[in-house]
Amino acid sequence: MSTVDEQQVTARTVGSVRVVGAGLLGASVALGLMAKGVDVIVHDASPSNLRLAIDYGAGRAAHATDSPALIVVAVPPDLTAEVVAQELKAYPDALVTDVASVKVAPLAELRVVGADVSRYIGSHPLAGRERGGAISARADLFIGRPWVITAHAGIPAAQIAVIEHLVLDLGAVPVAMSAEDHDRAVALVSHAPQAISTLLARRLVDANPGSLELAGQGLRDTTRIAASAPELWVQIMGANSQYIIEVLRDFRTDLDVMIHALSDQEARGARKSLAQILAGGNNGVSRLPGKHGQDRRFAQIVVKIDDRPGELARLLTEIGELGVNMEDLRLEHSPGAQIGLAEIAVLPEAEERLVSELEERGWKIAGAYQ
Amino acid sequence: MSTVDEQQVTARTVGSVRVVGAGLLGASVALGLMAKGVDVIVHDASPSNLRLAIDYGAGRAAHATDSPALIVVAVPPDLTAEVVAQELKAYPDALVTDVASVKVAPLAELRVVGADVSRYIGSHPLAGRERGGAISARADLFIGRPWVITAHAGIPAAQIAVIEHLVLDLGAVPVAMSAEDHDRAVALVSHAPQAISTLLARRLVDANPGSLELAGQGLRDTTRIAASAPELWVQIMGANSQYIIEVLRDFRTDLDVMIHALSDQEARGARKSLAQILAGGNNGVSRLPGKHGQDRRFAQIVVKIDDRPGELARLLTEIGELGVNMEDLRLEHSPGAQIGLAEIAVLPEAEERLVSELEERGWKIAGAYQ
Repeated sequence: MSTVDEQQVTARTVGSVRVVGAGLLGASVALGLMAKGVDVIVHDASPSNLRLAIDYGAGRAAHATDSPALIVVAVPPDLTAEVVAQELKAYPDALVTDVASVKVAPLAELRVVGADVSRYIGSHPLAGRERGGAISARADLFIGRPWVITAHAGIPAAQIAVIEHLVLDLGAVPVAMSAEDHDRAVALVSHAPQAISTLLARRLVDANPGSLELAGQGLRDTTRIAASAPELWVQIMGANSQYIIEVLRDFRTDLDVMIHALSDQEARGARKSLAQILAGGNNGVSRLPGKHGQDRRFAQIVVKIDDRPGELARLLTEIGELGVNMEDLRLEHSPGAQIGLAEIAVLPEAEERLVSELEERGWKIAGAYQ
Repeated sequence: MSTVDEQQVTARTVGSVRVVGAGLLGASVALGLMAKGVDVIVHDASPSNLRLAIDYGAGRAAHATDSPALIVVAVPPDLTAEVVAQELKAYPDALVTDVASVKVAPLAELRVVGADVSRYIGSHPLAGRERGGAISARADLFIGRPWVITAHAGIPAAQIAVIEHLVLDLGAVPVAMSAEDHDRAVALVSHAPQAISTLLARRLVDANPGSLELAGQGLRDTTRIAASAPELWVQIMGANSQYIIEVLRDFRTDLDVMIHALSDQEARGARKSLAQILAGGNNGVSRLPGKHGQDRRFAQIVVKIDDRPGELARLLTEIGELGVNMEDLRLEHSPGAQIGLAEIAVLPEAEERLVSELEERGWKIAGAYQ
């Protein structure tokens, strides 16, 4: 029996893995597997992308004698089915997966062209960054993230296990779903939010700069993902349009109710319908699992620190001396400000003692919240 | 001449300040002024709120002999004009301001009731938290935030200066605007984003839990402000409906274009119109000033750290020893994970040396980005 620690360093993945497409996801898969000691072959249609990825440590170049056990196709959604079909043909003993964020369309296309889908299992890691390319890749990109595996009917369990091992080797959490359930779910939690964030950010294009100076964290948060690459999102939205439209139409129905309530506030029930929409938003947010904004499992302590090297280290050293483990830490200071604020998350039972001990040691506590 | 340091500790505000309404904003104003040594009188219609605020250090109770120079009304938007009118009458020598997030409606109401608006100057600090009440108040809430001052025609410069001093004493940045420009601006940067975030979060109410397990940071960010208090937002939206509706109608026009493009992708120009909307979102986000997501002024270095007390302190101590000043710090670790990631922002010119020095000292660098 291996211990948890051994499991963390030993790869479950057996044999060579070929990664096709050295963008953010492909190169991150390659880096993550390399860190586990797996033999990773990387390929990209662009010779310069390929060289960059290899320089970056994301695998080695392909040899004619390669016989990969597993192939991970990480190309744009529009090309996914075509490349998966090529790889299935070129490596008749390999299992092939892909990481595209839509799952119904690639499988349907593969069936149309008569590809050997008995060796194909679609998958999708829910991970990413606003910046793409091998240059933004990170071995730790998938740690703790869900990775959906959409095995279609007739795929043997042993083949599914190969994909699960890949997912676990990259630190992600395997989630089994049908392709349809996956596409419906990501339309709601990823594609429609992308569309809405984009449409909101578009309203800023003609705003006068004085208005934008008043922008706060709320606007920044709601529009952050609108900075994502249009080329990619045209493909994703196109490939999952059916489910996205369902969400957007329901959204528009509510939007019309809201505009109507705001237009005639004296109408009977106008304020009530506005309040119901706002309360509905509360209910929706509260259904999101786990950490959301401030983590309610922890108490927050805000400590003022002078903005000079070593001050934060001194604070953390003293917290360590007190035997308190920080669950999270956020440092905030405005440009030019002479003090910063360290927001420290600790277990609720540690809060009171930590605050009093830090105050005794001369630290200024700006706030403490359960 | 005073130095910058002296200016930071000496209050510019002269005389007593009466704060009416001991919620988040009122109590934060009180705490901030108390920290500057100002005599702060706090009042709240609710005796228990008032006691809580006083216990919390947010000012003293009112005396019959009080003669405040300045009154800050921090009550819900619906009550603002009424309470401002009462205060103008009760204290005929005082200047009165308010902090409501709409500015046209209160002034208009004051004129209707014949209040002495020559002693009233509306203002609005762009600051807040999702949690309200004196218990969430912070002396530092306004530091570095814009605080709009909407002086109407005929207000003398000396009176405007009193409000500016209040704003500077609380660490905020005074911004002069007309009430109309203010209301149009906040409709765009605050009220419409609140509406959109709420409508998006509402889509989650009927989602199945499995879908929500796939939610990532994008959905969390876009729906975070949907957790705000419905009672407050019914009032804000009601009071600024005209400008909010303008933004929401333009949003809906784009939404219809997007739904249409997704519905018939084979139509001529469908993909192009989708790409244009997405690119428009990019352009909109790029217009937001200052820090947005990752701060591009700084290089980011990601260091792996073991999840045990003292490790982060040791890292920061060593960074301090190297003479490098951290501009920002974010600690991330997934529940149960045995390592954490410390994302450290430093000036770009310090990045290369810091990475090599840390690696020499045995730290694992997960990534470094400019």
